[in-house]
Amino acid sequence: MKKDTYLLLENYMLSCMDDSAHDKDHVYRVLYTALDIAQTLQHVDYDILICACLLHDIGRKEQFEDPEVCHAQAGADKALLFLIQNGFSKEYAESVSACIRSHRYRSGNPPQSIEAQILFDADKIDVSGVLGIARTLIYQGQMSEPLYSLLPDGQVSDGTGDTSPSFLQEYKYKLEKIYDHFFTERAKEIAMERRASAVSFYQSILQEIRSTHQYGKELLDHIIDSERL
Amino acid sequence: MKKDTYLLLENYMLSCMDDSAHDKDHVYRVLYTALDIAQTLQHVDYDILICACLLHDIGRKEQFEDPEVCHAQAGADKALLFLIQNGFSKEYAESVSACIRSHRYRSGNPPQSIEAQILFDADKIDVSGVLGIARTLIYQGQMSEPLYSLLPDGQVSDGTGDTSPSFLQEYKYKLEKIYDHFFTERAKEIAMERRASAVSFYQSILQEIRSTHQYGKELLDHIIDSERL
Repeated sequence: MKKDTYLLLENYMLSCMDDSAHDKDHVYRVLYTALDIAQTLQHVDYDILICACLLHDIGRKEQFEDPEVCHAQAGADKALLFLIQNGFSKEYAESVSACIRSHRYRSGNPPQSIEAQILFDADKIDVSGVLGIARTLIYQGQMSEPLYSLLPDGQVSDGTGDTSPSFLQEYKYKLEKIYDHFFTERAKEIAMERRASAVSFYQSILQEIRSTHQYGKELLDHIIDSERL
Repeated sequence: MKKDTYLLLENYMLSCMDDSAHDKDHVYRVLYTALDIAQTLQHVDYDILICACLLHDIGRKEQFEDPEVCHAQAGADKALLFLIQNGFSKEYAESVSACIRSHRYRSGNPPQSIEAQILFDADKIDVSGVLGIARTLIYQGQMSEPLYSLLPDGQVSDGTGDTSPSFLQEYKYKLEKIYDHFFTERAKEIAMERRASAVSFYQSILQEIRSTHQYGKELLDHIIDSERL
């Protein structure tokens, strides 16, 4: 990719990010991880890959303003329009747009091209390890969601089966389960290198929360009960 | 403390929390930790301690709305007024208020009473370990601060000497340094038990960020440079 093309795409990405340092830093990490993965594969079109990585989250703002909007779909549409308006070929613009559309696939829209699969894996790597933990906590801060929920008996839930959103629920529901679902071997390798740090964080925070709650609640109940005698 | 007194204070605390689950959960953890510490000491007035813990952060909203306001000072004033209006003695209200005022001491206003020192230590315990890491990341999400900064040469800073706010800066500037400054032995003990988990998180996230940036940036520069030839 030529330097002026890279700068054009980078500047457009930055203009869509609304000053969110978290989103911007995530985009660069996804790009860097994608290039790492691509190095281990053949027949990768780096022009498509770099462009798709830079623009993959440009629909975030639209989803934030209207949660019904899927940021992958909105970003794919915006990227297509931007690329065609800036003189890129229709074929190139559509290849990039397809990568962006499938980077957050639910059922029925899996990433097809090698560049789409690399983008998908690189994006997912950024929710692995303690980086994934940190990004989840930052999101929880933005959404004012709690770290944990209490069970009806007052015990701290470990997140399993929780119905209300919290960090521990998100860990059990999503973060814990991402390590087996990658398209590329290199992505699996990076994710497995990071897995232990995430597991260790989860176990430590649960231990800190539970020990505080259990012993403290016992002491409090004892103090309040003893006043009744 | 009588149960109805506890409920009166708890409800007032909850009414000041503006639906922030993070603040509310923090208050209960501080209360529980304070009771744990108090168990190891003599001559603790539990009525003062429990009340001061429950109400220690009721001035948060005032500080959030006007950063010039110190939440400890605002909370101390609010607590004094609330307690006197609700029929508690002036002496009791002033003792509680003094604990709240000094729970965030800068120079010149250290916690004096045993209850004030316990509250101070318990509040600080909640920034130790991975709970402290998680609370800092949640705050960073609320404030839209980044995880890390890049040095002028493009390398990822480890946070040391950074002038702009980020998670790694906050770790180096504050979180890393809290473990030596407690009034009570029990607080020191709890903090030291948690220290390794926080250090491990910091080292892991720095490693994940740096490895991603260093290798990926090299690959990107190579791809862009090779186009110039």
